Amino acid sequence: METLRDWNEECAVVGVYNADTAASVAYYSLFSMQHRGQEASGISSSTGEKLITIKDRGLVTAVFGDDKLKKLKGRSAVGHNRYSTAGEDSILDAQPVFARYDLGEIAIVHNGNLTNAKQIREDLIQKGAIFQSFMDTENLIHLIAKSQKEKLIDRIIDAVHKIEGAYSLIFLSRKKMFAIRDPHGFRPLSLGRIKNSDGSFGYMVASETCAFDLVGAEYIRDVEPGEMLVFEAEGEPRSYKIFEKQPRPCIFEFVYFARPDSRVFGHNVYEVRKNMGQELAREKPIEADMVIPVPDSGVAAAIGYARESGIPFELGIVRNHYVGRTFIEPTQQSRELKVKLKLNPIKELIQGKRLIVIDDSIVRGTTSRQIVRILRAAGAKEVHMKISSPPTISPCYYGVDTPDKSQLICANMTLEETCRFIEADSLSFLSLEGLRRSIQCDERELFCQACFDGKYIV
Amino acid sequence: METLRDWNEECAVVGVYNADTAASVAYYSLFSMQHRGQEASGISSSTGEKLITIKDRGLVTAVFGDDKLKKLKGRSAVGHNRYSTAGEDSILDAQPVFARYDLGEIAIVHNGNLTNAKQIREDLIQKGAIFQSFMDTENLIHLIAKSQKEKLIDRIIDAVHKIEGAYSLIFLSRKKMFAIRDPHGFRPLSLGRIKNSDGSFGYMVASETCAFDLVGAEYIRDVEPGEMLVFEAEGEPRSYKIFEKQPRPCIFEFVYFARPDSRVFGHNVYEVRKNMGQELAREKPIEADMVIPVPDSGVAAAIGYARESGIPFELGIVRNHYVGRTFIEPTQQSRELKVKLKLNPIKELIQGKRLIVIDDSIVRGTTSRQIVRILRAAGAKEVHMKISSPPTISPCYYGVDTPDKSQLICANMTLEETCRFIEADSLSFLSLEGLRRSIQCDERELFCQACFDGKYIV
Amino acid sequence: METLRDWNEECAVVGVYNADTAASVAYYSLFSMQHRGQEASGISSSTGEKLITIKDRGLVTAVFGDDKLKKLKGRSAVGHNRYSTAGEDSILDAQPVFARYDLGEIAIVHNGNLTNAKQIREDLIQKGAIFQSFMDTENLIHLIAKSQKEKLIDRIIDAVHKIEGAYSLIFLSRKKMFAIRDPHGFRPLSLGRIKNSDGSFGYMVASETCAFDLVGAEYIRDVEPGEMLVFEAEGEPRSYKIFEKQPRPCIFEFVYFARPDSRVFGHNVYEVRKNMGQELAREKPIEADMVIPVPDSGVAAAIGYARESGIPFELGIVRNHYVGRTFIEPTQQSRELKVKLKLNPIKELIQGKRLIVIDDSIVRGTTSRQIVRILRAAGAKEVHMKISSPPTISPCYYGVDTPDKSQLICANMTLEETCRFIEADSLSFLSLEGLRRSIQCDERELFCQACFDGKYIV
Amino acid sequence: METLRDWNEECAVVGVYNADTAASVAYYSLFSMQHRGQEASGISSSTGEKLITIKDRGLVTAVFGDDKLKKLKGRSAVGHNRYSTAGEDSILDAQPVFARYDLGEIAIVHNGNLTNAKQIREDLIQKGAIFQSFMDTENLIHLIAKSQKEKLIDRIIDAVHKIEGAYSLIFLSRKKMFAIRDPHGFRPLSLGRIKNSDGSFGYMVASETCAFDLVGAEYIRDVEPGEMLVFEAEGEPRSYKIFEKQPRPCIFEFVYFARPDSRVFGHNVYEVRKNMGQELAREKPIEADMVIPVPDSGVAAAIGYARESGIPFELGIVRNHYVGRTFIEPTQQSRELKVKLKLNPIKELIQGKRLIVIDDSIVRGTTSRQIVRILRAAGAKEVHMKISSPPTISPCYYGVDTPDKSQLICANMTLEETCRFIEADSLSFLSLEGLRRSIQCDERELFCQACFDGKYIV
Repeated sequence: METLRDWNEECAVVGVYNADTAASVAYYSLFSMQHRGQEASGISSSTGEKLITIKDRGLVTAVFGDDKLKKLKGRSAVGHNRYSTAGEDSILDAQPVFARYDLGEIAIVHNGNLTNAKQIREDLIQKGAIFQSFMDTENLIHLIAKSQKEKLIDRIIDAVHKIEGAYSLIFLSRKKMFAIRDPHGFRPLSLGRIKNSDGSFGYMVASETCAFDLVGAEYIRDVEPGEMLVFEAEGEPRSYKIFEKQPRPCIFEFVYFARPDSRVFGHNVYEVRKNMGQELAREKPIEADMVIPVPDSGVAAAIGYARESGIPFELGIVRNHYVGRTFIEPTQQSRELKVKLKLNPIKELIQGKRLIVIDDSIVRGTTSRQIVRILRAAGAKEVHMKISSPPTISPCYYGVDTPDKSQLICANMTLEETCRFIEADSLSFLSLEGLRRSIQCDERELFCQACFDGKYIV
Repeated sequence: METLRDWNEECAVVGVYNADTAASVAYYSLFSMQHRGQEASGISSSTGEKLITIKDRGLVTAVFGDDKLKKLKGRSAVGHNRYSTAGEDSILDAQPVFARYDLGEIAIVHNGNLTNAKQIREDLIQKGAIFQSFMDTENLIHLIAKSQKEKLIDRIIDAVHKIEGAYSLIFLSRKKMFAIRDPHGFRPLSLGRIKNSDGSFGYMVASETCAFDLVGAEYIRDVEPGEMLVFEAEGEPRSYKIFEKQPRPCIFEFVYFARPDSRVFGHNVYEVRKNMGQELAREKPIEADMVIPVPDSGVAAAIGYARESGIPFELGIVRNHYVGRTFIEPTQQSRELKVKLKLNPIKELIQGKRLIVIDDSIVRGTTSRQIVRILRAAGAKEVHMKISSPPTISPCYYGVDTPDKSQLICANMTLEETCRFIEADSLSFLSLEGLRRSIQCDERELFCQACFDGKYIV
Repeated sequence: METLRDWNEECAVVGVYNADTAASVAYYSLFSMQHRGQEASGISSSTGEKLITIKDRGLVTAVFGDDKLKKLKGRSAVGHNRYSTAGEDSILDAQPVFARYDLGEIAIVHNGNLTNAKQIREDLIQKGAIFQSFMDTENLIHLIAKSQKEKLIDRIIDAVHKIEGAYSLIFLSRKKMFAIRDPHGFRPLSLGRIKNSDGSFGYMVASETCAFDLVGAEYIRDVEPGEMLVFEAEGEPRSYKIFEKQPRPCIFEFVYFARPDSRVFGHNVYEVRKNMGQELAREKPIEADMVIPVPDSGVAAAIGYARESGIPFELGIVRNHYVGRTFIEPTQQSRELKVKLKLNPIKELIQGKRLIVIDDSIVRGTTSRQIVRILRAAGAKEVHMKISSPPTISPCYYGVDTPDKSQLICANMTLEETCRFIEADSLSFLSLEGLRRSIQCDERELFCQACFDGKYIV
Repeated sequence: METLRDWNEECAVVGVYNADTAASVAYYSLFSMQHRGQEASGISSSTGEKLITIKDRGLVTAVFGDDKLKKLKGRSAVGHNRYSTAGEDSILDAQPVFARYDLGEIAIVHNGNLTNAKQIREDLIQKGAIFQSFMDTENLIHLIAKSQKEKLIDRIIDAVHKIEGAYSLIFLSRKKMFAIRDPHGFRPLSLGRIKNSDGSFGYMVASETCAFDLVGAEYIRDVEPGEMLVFEAEGEPRSYKIFEKQPRPCIFEFVYFARPDSRVFGHNVYEVRKNMGQELAREKPIEADMVIPVPDSGVAAAIGYARESGIPFELGIVRNHYVGRTFIEPTQQSRELKVKLKLNPIKELIQGKRLIVIDDSIVRGTTSRQIVRILRAAGAKEVHMKISSPPTISPCYYGVDTPDKSQLICANMTLEETCRFIEADSLSFLSLEGLRRSIQCDERELFCQACFDGKYIV
């Protein structure tokens, strides 16, 4: 539930190299990944001679209205969707970050969060650097500019060895493009290729594979954790393994962030979510008349739960998609009305019925409570809230916008207390093991699941 | 599929009487019925002394941005969402239509289409009337103004006896409100009540009951075909049966127009659509691996089909809801890309699979063909298109924006030819009887089904 | 002083017939007459087959941004700039008023005010007419539509014989154009011609001749009071004298409304204003160090005063032209700041000096007082306010937006009291005879000077 | 003639310290200096704890619409209006430039041009600095950040000793403000004080003194060439003479840039311009019927010319002030129409007359030619163009946007050729000595007059 969410992905990135209409490919890719950030959008393209950057607040379709896309000439481009973070300081922050430095011009896009950004920034500042924005991304350019290495590639390697945290980074210079996934591979990044009109292939990297589908690109593989891809001249990108660490991709991508039609960390998101529902049905069975999802994120898990349990699946709550950023609230309205603007149950369907309601997660608990209330007001006899992930008990430091631990209801209340707070008849969560099983991954495959177990890798 | 649709509802109406914040109630109601018209929006309110009207092009949230809602003072209001119709002539057309006339001031909103509008207009023009817009609604005000009757109520009755066609009309004068459904009750109109802060009740009428849910109103009943409700002072509206004809509500409301959480003509839309899917499964069974809907309109029928057939339901196509009115198309793109912007299949799910695809209707056939192509490109082994309504073979003259008969594929091709055109492995439609059965209505209950059988009542 | 003015012209009109790019000519004409109305703007053009109308709130450059002008095809057009009048009722009012009626389609623009509009409207309403706006112009269309005459020309003559007041009217039908100045010719209207690319001539009428200059048209003559011009096919317009009354053009056009480069009622405005200053110098001499105008309207009279008196002319007050409609006022500011935003004296010039300040008129007196205060604060030793017109003691009913008599300072205070109120060292006005002399007109030439002498003709 | 100008000032700056509503004072100041830059506008304020910056493209009233000014809390602020310079690269460039660095936070505004910016930038880049914009201002922050000095004041002194060119700079830190005029004092900068509500004084510096007038500040004195003012805590700013060079203020400020109500380099601009006209009359007398200015910039000189020559002054050309940035040009129009949109002569006044036309300068000659043509078309018998400054033969490198030498007509043609090009009957310029005399300055007072004599100081 978008604007009501308390747990939000920060950003999407895309890079396009040697493609017929690079900026246009970047534009459509950002459009398909709009769910990962609606605050600001931007694209830098390279003509081979210079970089051109256009970025602004707003949805990608708003930022690139009129004829702006035409100004972004060239056969390579990087783009970014930004998720809103708090604070009036950040009014002007948008990516790509562009800079001129001793090797020429560079543009960077970044999806993630650098955990040692503050130390690096202070260190750089002590050495005379200036910071003109509040984005971690600025660190990278400074590190590259200050590196003693001669070639850009070596400087980038230098720079990323100084930073820690989660990052999918794409660097665009006048002639080349570099894509890096952090050592643990927290955030997703995939490689695809796109056919040019002359039969040659262009290449692209994007946070989610749904971007490939829209622009007609072919998914090749994921960029590996710790891998750097170098795009240069024509032909396939060269691969460098610049880190050798245990991969720990973010398990929450499966739970909520990614689009169900994306392939994330090698697994289709829809299938994983459906499995989560099935596991949940096995772990936490209950008698009921129907299984209904909180749309849109709970749909796949609800289908899985219904299938496993044999209890009918119903799309019992209808979502209004006309709620946008400009929604005005003429009268002082309760939070309940805010939920109502988005979600409306089908009364005739649920009246007198025992409902299993599937949602992806519980953060503060207030939205869940309102959903329960709306369902009861519509006549539900019983409301059993089932969450297709474990209780979220720890904030994320790897690029996800989350509240403090003090505001995470499951970190501060027992299951019974939480159930009482959200006013449900029962409440249950999928176990961490169940979640892992849903991914059907290899035993040895590890994930970052710090939000569920509090164990931070970096 | 909203902007790709070839068969579109025209408009939503709402009327609010004796309510604490009438304009605000109208505003939220229009917001919940935004799916019935995105071109223009407007509200007139009455202070008791005078009417105030604000209307403009754009979504309801855009038209009433800033502080405009505050200007709409008073305890009664009428509102309208308008569906875009062709032609540059209509640039300024938006409702409510407001006029001063011999009895004072009046504002009218209208959902539907008057089949004798042209004759009436020409007749009125011959008698000296002037028409300042291209909306049928202007006829009504002229007829009322020219009526020889003394009281407004009698003039309204006079006026509506001169018009033919489909209309849900709401009239707002300075002190009263009148709501009328046409003799055949083509378009839906429901009555609800809303509790004021002092414990008294206000009343409202709206095209769809989902409006009641959002504003916390209670559904009382449908306005009957041929019924006029008069809202005056406090207390319940008085009812007048001003026509005695065979009701013929529009069966297509169940097929596509209405929101699934609305109760239309006494039946919940979601339940009817699910039934349509079940009937379709009984009438047109086929072996397949999964049932997938074209989202969002095909979802309920697909759930029904899956349940009846035992074939698994899967949400195999993901819809991007960020496509808005301002979407720009930087490169000349194929119609295929346009469909892709909205719909993306889940490759991993459908690869090598035999699909039953449920859509609500086929109009020109081009969109269906693109959907089939996208599914095949994603690896579907077989694509069986199943439509949860009969072939649409005749245009609508009762307030729905439809193409000419010459453009309706099913009016011009056999089933086989149509199947070949859309490139599906098979194609089948629900029978008209099956559709009727889905509504689970009384034998004697009749519908307007002219779009399916070409039999026009008026 | 535009937005501070208390006495405002209502509207400008233009009509173009048989010209290569009629809508474009209308557009530039409206642009050159923007000073007569900044609230709303609109143009109707005729393709010969139908009329097309675009109108909206805002300056003419804003209303016709984008490609809207291209939609206004055809070789004839009428246009209008509207001055803001009070009241939220008028939100949607803009001209041209367009209507379909028994003879086809018609668009009307109107500059002026109908003094019997209310009676006519009530009469029309009693006969069944409806009014959809709050503009007097709607009356005209009703009168034409209801006329028993067969031809449009006879109907128009019929209609204008029913109305009283001030009006410059232009009617556009699909094939013809009609321009009428009221019997007394209160408001200005001139005829010009414009050369087409094929060597033929198109014709145009406009409120001010400055419109001709911008579009390269040649001024032919004024439309006479009581004259109707009929534009039909190619060739010169035919003239009909439809009223025989004493002309009484508005003398205030010379005082303030018209642009100095316009020729109004046969006299160049700049020359008349300069004469006003000279007359004022003769009538009300005083010793002083310099003559300074309140810009921009007082400049010509100040030049005249200086020339006659031999006292140096100085542009002692600088006007800021960046004040627009959207000016925001972040802090609650005094009226003094509002004047300061527009006007700033040149301190070094006026310090210790005795100033003669020339303004065109005094309405409420508050703006004059602020100007005096600003000048004193800048060091002026003496401030002698001299007004290049007589005291305004009566409101206008002929199309000018004026305050009530109770708010006209000169209608309620003696000269001495007014001088004290505005805090000037002395105050004097040009006499009515002096004003007449300035126009250098024939003895028998009469003007409407009701605002100065309270004698209303109609 | 604003948008037709070929010789344009770059930017206005303002700094406010210890004032009640600092951002509001900065806002009004920028509004009064809007003529120095219409492309972009911005303000940074300091709360004492942190800096807040808002900047965007557009006029100051547009950038700070809504409630944005309220976000700029604190008692000190710096602001900037930016003149449009060429190039799509600069899309995002606007000032103040904000940065965090080792001493905290800083915001800088800059009016002028650094002649060694490129070398410094390259040098800084070689040392690892990155540049995120195309503004010279970024250099300053780097130099300050990299300075080895401990205190900000010493670093600023360090930094400005490294740069050359024209600069009026204002630095805002969290607690202090620093204002510097370059060693030669090319661009103007004045000091004023403003009374707070508690009786204490706040201080401000601004490019032009007209800013003081609007906000009710008192002019104290000019900031001296090579002087740095340090604003710290309460009380008067401390003054440091950090350069000892020959002052060379820009003489063109008198010719065109500054508002006539400003005091520039100790001289009132209006008086100087009037003197220029008088000198011109003495140097280049000619017989004629009237003296008319090209408005608005030629008015004061024309008054002076008329007074000295005894030939009557007339405001013979009327300027339309509604031409804004959004002016659309629906038909492909000649440059002549573009001039016409702004300037219209008073035909009746000039017909058959011998005109002396006073303009401030001639750059390319094309605008002058169009003015001559318009005047002749309006019936002028003779057009004698007199320029109140010497021929401009060299471009400016000190912060003024000028064309290449190859495009300066006077650098490439003789006086006779130029006269023939602009189609005037005669053409004459004020001598450089005459210009100097007009300023009535001390013999030893020197100016930068490189645009007239090609002698560059730096």
